[in-house]
Amino acid sequence: MKSIIVKPPKAGVEMVDLDLKEKLSAKYILVKTIENGICGTDRGIANGNLSFARVPSGYDYLILGHETLGMVIEVGDEVKGIKKGDLVVPIVRRGCNNCLNCLAGRQDYCETGQFSEIGIRGLHGTMREFFIDEEKNLVVLPKSLKEIGVLLEPLSNIVKTFEAVGLIQKRMIWNCQDSSFECRNAGIIGSGPIGLLFALLSRSKGFNVYVMNKREPSSLEEQICNAIEAKFINMTKDEIPNFDLLIDTSGYPSAFIPLIDKINKNGLLVLFGTTSKDSHPLDTNLVNHIVESNITILGSVNASKNNFIEGVNLLSAWNNSYPELLKKLITNKVKAEDAIPYILNKPKGEIKTVIIW
Amino acid sequence: MKSIIVKPPKAGVEMVDLDLKEKLSAKYILVKTIENGICGTDRGIANGNLSFARVPSGYDYLILGHETLGMVIEVGDEVKGIKKGDLVVPIVRRGCNNCLNCLAGRQDYCETGQFSEIGIRGLHGTMREFFIDEEKNLVVLPKSLKEIGVLLEPLSNIVKTFEAVGLIQKRMIWNCQDSSFECRNAGIIGSGPIGLLFALLSRSKGFNVYVMNKREPSSLEEQICNAIEAKFINMTKDEIPNFDLLIDTSGYPSAFIPLIDKINKNGLLVLFGTTSKDSHPLDTNLVNHIVESNITILGSVNASKNNFIEGVNLLSAWNNSYPELLKKLITNKVKAEDAIPYILNKPKGEIKTVIIW
Amino acid sequence: MKSIIVKPPKAGVEMVDLDLKEKLSAKYILVKTIENGICGTDRGIANGNLSFARVPSGYDYLILGHETLGMVIEVGDEVKGIKKGDLVVPIVRRGCNNCLNCLAGRQDYCETGQFSEIGIRGLHGTMREFFIDEEKNLVVLPKSLKEIGVLLEPLSNIVKTFEAVGLIQKRMIWNCQDSSFECRNAGIIGSGPIGLLFALLSRSKGFNVYVMNKREPSSLEEQICNAIEAKFINMTKDEIPNFDLLIDTSGYPSAFIPLIDKINKNGLLVLFGTTSKDSHPLDTNLVNHIVESNITILGSVNASKNNFIEGVNLLSAWNNSYPELLKKLITNKVKAEDAIPYILNKPKGEIKTVIIW
Amino acid sequence: MKSIIVKPPKAGVEMVDLDLKEKLSAKYILVKTIENGICGTDRGIANGNLSFARVPSGYDYLILGHETLGMVIEVGDEVKGIKKGDLVVPIVRRGCNNCLNCLAGRQDYCETGQFSEIGIRGLHGTMREFFIDEEKNLVVLPKSLKEIGVLLEPLSNIVKTFEAVGLIQKRMIWNCQDSSFECRNAGIIGSGPIGLLFALLSRSKGFNVYVMNKREPSSLEEQICNAIEAKFINMTKDEIPNFDLLIDTSGYPSAFIPLIDKINKNGLLVLFGTTSKDSHPLDTNLVNHIVESNITILGSVNASKNNFIEGVNLLSAWNNSYPELLKKLITNKVKAEDAIPYILNKPKGEIKTVIIW
Repeated sequence: MKSIIVKPPKAGVEMVDLDLKEKLSAKYILVKTIENGICGTDRGIANGNLSFARVPSGYDYLILGHETLGMVIEVGDEVKGIKKGDLVVPIVRRGCNNCLNCLAGRQDYCETGQFSEIGIRGLHGTMREFFIDEEKNLVVLPKSLKEIGVLLEPLSNIVKTFEAVGLIQKRMIWNCQDSSFECRNAGIIGSGPIGLLFALLSRSKGFNVYVMNKREPSSLEEQICNAIEAKFINMTKDEIPNFDLLIDTSGYPSAFIPLIDKINKNGLLVLFGTTSKDSHPLDTNLVNHIVESNITILGSVNASKNNFIEGVNLLSAWNNSYPELLKKLITNKVKAEDAIPYILNKPKGEIKTVIIW
Repeated sequence: MKSIIVKPPKAGVEMVDLDLKEKLSAKYILVKTIENGICGTDRGIANGNLSFARVPSGYDYLILGHETLGMVIEVGDEVKGIKKGDLVVPIVRRGCNNCLNCLAGRQDYCETGQFSEIGIRGLHGTMREFFIDEEKNLVVLPKSLKEIGVLLEPLSNIVKTFEAVGLIQKRMIWNCQDSSFECRNAGIIGSGPIGLLFALLSRSKGFNVYVMNKREPSSLEEQICNAIEAKFINMTKDEIPNFDLLIDTSGYPSAFIPLIDKINKNGLLVLFGTTSKDSHPLDTNLVNHIVESNITILGSVNASKNNFIEGVNLLSAWNNSYPELLKKLITNKVKAEDAIPYILNKPKGEIKTVIIW
Repeated sequence: MKSIIVKPPKAGVEMVDLDLKEKLSAKYILVKTIENGICGTDRGIANGNLSFARVPSGYDYLILGHETLGMVIEVGDEVKGIKKGDLVVPIVRRGCNNCLNCLAGRQDYCETGQFSEIGIRGLHGTMREFFIDEEKNLVVLPKSLKEIGVLLEPLSNIVKTFEAVGLIQKRMIWNCQDSSFECRNAGIIGSGPIGLLFALLSRSKGFNVYVMNKREPSSLEEQICNAIEAKFINMTKDEIPNFDLLIDTSGYPSAFIPLIDKINKNGLLVLFGTTSKDSHPLDTNLVNHIVESNITILGSVNASKNNFIEGVNLLSAWNNSYPELLKKLITNKVKAEDAIPYILNKPKGEIKTVIIW
Repeated sequence: MKSIIVKPPKAGVEMVDLDLKEKLSAKYILVKTIENGICGTDRGIANGNLSFARVPSGYDYLILGHETLGMVIEVGDEVKGIKKGDLVVPIVRRGCNNCLNCLAGRQDYCETGQFSEIGIRGLHGTMREFFIDEEKNLVVLPKSLKEIGVLLEPLSNIVKTFEAVGLIQKRMIWNCQDSSFECRNAGIIGSGPIGLLFALLSRSKGFNVYVMNKREPSSLEEQICNAIEAKFINMTKDEIPNFDLLIDTSGYPSAFIPLIDKINKNGLLVLFGTTSKDSHPLDTNLVNHIVESNITILGSVNASKNNFIEGVNLLSAWNNSYPELLKKLITNKVKAEDAIPYILNKPKGEIKTVIIW
């Protein structure tokens, strides 16, 4: 079985031929990988920049891959809800089996840090021809989502974030006078796949949406923003409005700290992006603004199965409301045997690159 | 303009020719009615059985109709978010402008009872060729929902109910060990349009769904249940499982009280249906079960704009996931000029009858 | 060690001399019982009327007692937060160690039903001179609560109920226009210890409170109601107002069902009492009122440790705000050797009878 | 009537003799001021450092004072719930009468910024012999709180903060395995009155509490920490533990930013303090920690009436549980005629200075 492996903490990624070694219990589900998405985490591991990447116990390599779309080709005797031919996506993080959040299936809120993640921390990923998993870790998608289902994993993280946003903003009355969110502005720093999925979900919730970057939009970004009635803002020259919800997908303090004074009373800043080697001063004017305006800042990572399930409904809804749009987020499709360069470096103009198996 | 009117509290319904008399402010939106759904409330008013029906102030008749799909044909100068050609659905209840819930756009929770409802209480409805409304009362649908958009109004009430269910069940940990609801059973008493929409939404949330009636399913009901993987139960002879969520759409105490002892610990009974002339004893065995099992019973009525907006996303999602299925809920389509008999009496085998303008 | 035992399902209660047989791990805490409260559950078990009572595994008797105040007299080596001389109250229910709620310390919401309860189901209670328990099951009280600390256990159940009420009523805006609850009416059916504790907590939250019974108040009830500015209502002759929160502590459907039409829009009926051999019809008028008014009915039982901890704060607050008042709820104090008749039968005029060890 | 006035934006504070000019409607309540607390905001206004201070419309001065304890000496004909002799505390912020939060009595979450605040923004305060207010703005305290009631206003702000903390942390399971918070650490930066009230409330909720400052504790601070079983940490030399809840009362980015990496997974940083002229870099290591650990940062200001009401219950509880302790927070009592120097400068060793009228 062709597999794409890494050997963290060393840089480098290669395709090798491996046997499928997982054991086949009555609970097994054998999945043929259809597609993998490539994201910043994959590239960080492949380039040896992410210290948290680790091989599974007993191995000297890690099969990469955590953004997945697969098709079930065989199921064990005890499997009930999933059947041959189903389109499935595996969740990424697997719980510590110890803290209350992991016991309740909310390993995205694991307290011990003893969780694993497929393709990232201690468990083999899905950049290979086949993989085996259990029912509790797989989410089924309708067949109509075959072309965009690989986007479910990144979307699930956005769903989890909005789950927290929705709860936090119950601090007060945040809805508009007609009970909608049509009077609220959401601004998103960054126009990559995460930024655009945040834009889509914010629009679905009714917000006026602004997608921001430090340049003019590409023609594809313009197309996407137009389709969902979002506005693209060139942060270097356009006027920036005030926001009720500001979402940073860049990870750069120098990008989001200067915008804190654009956040309205009772507003919320989401920190979703991570990166390295940036720093920006936070001064008392901004601290006073945060305090006096009841502003909340939310860090959010990962997602649990219920977020994937809600993500399926969202992909379905958008596939109906914006036909053909989500496919445009997948700018590059490469065959597995040609994937290595794409894993090492981001191609120009990419929104999402997908590996086809 | 052809209009279908009633004169409550008198029984009777007729089609008449009326002028559109609403005044045209800069905020007006002129809508051509495409379709109206007919529901039990319409029939109750037409047959003189609903004491709460009332004519608008200054009129001796009420234009019927609160389940609507329309297309915008003209907009006033101050209208911003809605444009000519948009598919729209008006919300039904309009607030008292006095209590906090109405001020916050949650007139479904009006405290004073001084609200109005189009086609029902004090405001003309939409069973007419054209109507005028304001932006804040209209919800826009994607064009792809044209064939099923008339279902949005009934669906909105189910969305509002689940909004409350979701909140109430945060009393404890209600999700399964994988964070989903796949270990939970939802049972629905009644297989009319409301029952089937409850079944659809429960399935979307991940529940195992049981649709119940006191007879065998029609072949259409069987088809729909199969498509969404719900099970139809003939309450007169099939074994009835235990439920975590039991939803009554019948209004009959004699239907739901005997099932209270089928509700699991921490479970919830939703009362959604209303009817008349039934009664059933509630004894201390059941009261003890409710107390000792932390059971909650929720009465739920109406919906606000945010529920309609979420309903649009659900219709979109289902239109993608179950192509052609929702259309099957519309069992009867009648031209406006032929609608009167359908408003007076429910045709055999009907799930939803729709009037075409 | 003198101990009061029962042999369910047989009627009868006796005082015997027993050895303390629990094993002494490094986690043990040895507690001298100061007082026990007697409640309806104790009487139900002693009279052989409660089918759920059961002896601990390996025993043919059950030591009675679940309302407790004790003083720590010895602690094991691993105990950290509790020390000799501390006043303590043990929680009653011990989890199934299996369902998510029990794992999270919320055994009051146990899903499996496999929980135990001291003095009731499968675990020895505290009607004995000494008992041993672990830190996680004990709640510490300030010394100033010595005279009323025996009320903590019954109070904890009321705290748990209000925890759910507070959550459920977030369905809409329930507070008054000044953010308080001073515009809301709480009615309590029953003026026993549970009813009066509900009255106290409702007043603390700001409600206008009505305590109801089917007779005139005793002079003590009058005194208590006056002190907390609650109104006593004789249900057989006084006019009954409308309620936003109606709390039944009687368990009689014939008491609370006729009051359902007194519940305001968005209101809530709490079912807390249990009893036997009563029944009352629920008709469609009431069902329609529940539905059309968004009324919720909440069954509530038991409490978890966090509810006991909040109860300590409440007892402290009331001990300061209403000095001497809570002591009046303890109408009868009897020595352990004289307690049997009080366990078998409720004395006239009793609010709470307490056994002194 | 002696009154302490300021003329913002000018520095300076003086005592003058003024008439009471408010108009006496049937809703008036005349209150004799017993005590005022002095806080940093008073000193900032008196020294001309707070740009938001403003005189009431039609006046060229502002009567200072927003921390108040008073006694009712006369009530208008329409007043129902408050009577002569009642101890009362007025709320500080008065709503804009326009945004939904203000309409619902939550002016602490005012969206328009068009609110007023007694003694601060556009409304006369209570540093005067008498003042008039309406029932909806006054909170009644039991007589037993006369000596510490002046602490209610500062406490109310802490109550509001914990209200938000409690909601936000429902993102996941935050309680310990016994449902308490006894496994959680709360750290408080700053040991002034706000810091110590945060310490008291955190202890009431069950947290292990650490009070931090950049020096050794005073003997009084040591006494207070011992009484509530909190630990004092000298940030310049003691080891600092990890926190689940970190509360900054200093306003200095240089104080709280270096502690962000001490915040546990799913933890929360509260920003409560405001100050000027400090700045500290926020780098990507900390941003990554916030994101990867699901950390939330909450800015919180002001309080609404319901928070004052809960504060009354807390003062009562603490007055019972820690007799004599709260009085120790009031380190300085000065007569009104001697108050000016204390308003201009903080005396050494002060926790709270109170003006006696």
